[in-house]
Order: sequence, then structure tokens, then C-alpha cells
Amino acid sequence: MKILGIDPGLVKTGWGILEAEDNRLTYIASGLIKPNSNQEMAQRLQEIDEGLQKIITEFDPGCAAIEETFVNKNPASALKLGLARGVAMACPARLGLRVGEYPANLVKKSVVGAGKASKDQVGVMIKTLLPACGDLSEDEADALAVAITHAHHRESALKFGGKLSGAIRG
Amino acid sequence: MKILGIDPGLVKTGWGILEAEDNRLTYIASGLIKPNSNQEMAQRLQEIDEGLQKIITEFDPGCAAIEETFVNKNPASALKLGLARGVAMACPARLGLRVGEYPANLVKKSVVGAGKASKDQVGVMIKTLLPACGDLSEDEADALAVAITHAHHRESALKFGGKLSGAIRG
Repeated sequence: MKILGIDPGLVKTGWGILEAEDNRLTYIASGLIKPNSNQEMAQRLQEIDEGLQKIITEFDPGCAAIEETFVNKNPASALKLGLARGVAMACPARLGLRVGEYPANLVKKSVVGAGKASKDQVGVMIKTLLPACGDLSEDEADALAVAITHAHHRESALKFGGKLSGAIRG
Repeated sequence: MKILGIDPGLVKTGWGILEAEDNRLTYIASGLIKPNSNQEMAQRLQEIDEGLQKIITEFDPGCAAIEETFVNKNPASALKLGLARGVAMACPARLGLRVGEYPANLVKKSVVGAGKASKDQVGVMIKTLLPACGDLSEDEADALAVAITHAHHRESALKFGGKLSGAIRG
């Protein structure tokens, strides 16, 4: 199954797609959606929506995953982050994909093995787990990290004859 | 021109449509979108998107308007509000509508004549300006209030031979 990971942001929305088959993960594609910041807010959000819609149409993933947002101390920043995140969750859902949410420390644990790993450690592990990915921006690496997390939890659930809840909350 | 006003929220998203012709405002329709709160977040957001899409398809407004969000002191609440707001802005934009943003005090001033009007005063004035609206929930009244604000600013701009910027920021 192909999994779409998303790291949403108003300035840059990272995305990454991998194929998860049994225990094997294969890098498929990744990139950044960068809305034109000179536009009105609704237009910027629409560009994120349009970008994700194109990616989903092209690569046809079976599900999506997103990291639970770190709630900033600044309410104005949290609101802005929410705008992009809302679009990044509603778009795959509109196109029929279930969207798994994973807390940041679970993502780090799934990828690096430790819940308090640094950004650099995550980047290095992504390259190890998905060697075909080449050089990645931080946001692409984060998007692939949450896709890997989803793949791991899906595997564990299947192994025990269960099914994945889709959203595992911290 | 028909104007769609939106008051977004995860629990209840208010919407209202009015027709603005010269100085005359006519109530067309209003209501609430209430996503099922037992669902996963992406699904709840998708219900807001789906609801707004249906309304836009049915009533065919020429533009949309939304109040600038009051930034809560609590970052977690601000983030949640942002999720709904992001969807409420991206959906009309995706369907080709420009989305005007107006600060709360400008909305109150446009409707009641004072930037610090109470919720009750706004409700009473909506009934006076749009007598056909009948009994409204607070969120519907707020949605119609921002639609009225957009109508006023559109009128003023046209009167002076100008055009409306679409988004007037506070």
C-alpha cells in the first residue's frame, strides 16, 4: 500500500510517498508545496489543497498520515499552523483517504528508536530506511517520517490479526 | 450579487447567504454545519468542506466573506479553530470564490454602528436589516453579519468608482 505523509505549513508543506509491503519500505516520491505568499490567505490555502490533490491523483496512495502538531506557545502562530493543517487533513479525506494522526514523539521513536531524537537524526535515518530518496529538505524528511510511522503501526496491527485504527493519539 | 458569509468552527460552522443589490440587502438562506464529533478529525473537517461545497453549488454566491479570528489566549484552542477556518477559506477558493477577511470590530461597526457591540446587539440588527431571516442561531447571525460587512464595503468601493480589494485587514 502506498502511504502519503504530510508535514503541513503555510510557507512550505512537505509531502512524501512510500510503498509499504510486508516489512519492506520503498521510497516513491516527495516534494514541497510552496504557496505564493503574496496572495490572500484563502488563495494560499487553496494552493496547498490543489497541490495535495494533484499528488493524490498522480500517485494514488491508499491512506495518509500527519504528525500531531506541536502546539506553539504563541496563539497567533498556532492559528496559522491550524489553517494549513486543516486543509492538509480535509483534502485527503475529501478524496476518500483515511488520515492517521501520530504524536511527534511516536514518529521519532518509529524512525530513530528514541522519542527525543533531533531533526538531524531523523534525516539520517530516513536516508538509511529509504536510500532512494536522495537529498531531502527537512519538511520532506518529516513527511516521510510520519508515513514510515504509519507503515510500522499498520504492520504491527496486521501481525496480530488486528486492523489499524487510523488515528493513534498520544 | 449573492454573498456567502461564514463563521467557522469545529463544532458548529454558521453560514448565511444574502443578495446585495445597490443598497438593498435580501436574506436568502442560512444554517449550521455540525460535523459528527465522534469521527476522526480529518473526517470532521471533511464534513465542513462538503457542507460548504453543497451550499455554494446550490446557491451559487459570487463571493465569500469570513471574520478574522479572535486569537484565543490558549494555543491549543487557536490551533483547533485554525483547522476549521482553513477548510472554510480553502473550500470557496477552490470553487472559484474570492474570500474577503474582515476584522471583528469592523463587522460590528458595519452592522451595529459600533465596534464594541454585544452579540445580542448584532443579533437584533441582523433581524432589522434582514427581516426575512426569522429566528437565527448566534453562528448564523455572525455569518450574515460578515456577509453584510462585505456588502457595505463593496458598495462603498463601487460608489467611488473603485473596486473591492476582497480582503480588508485590521
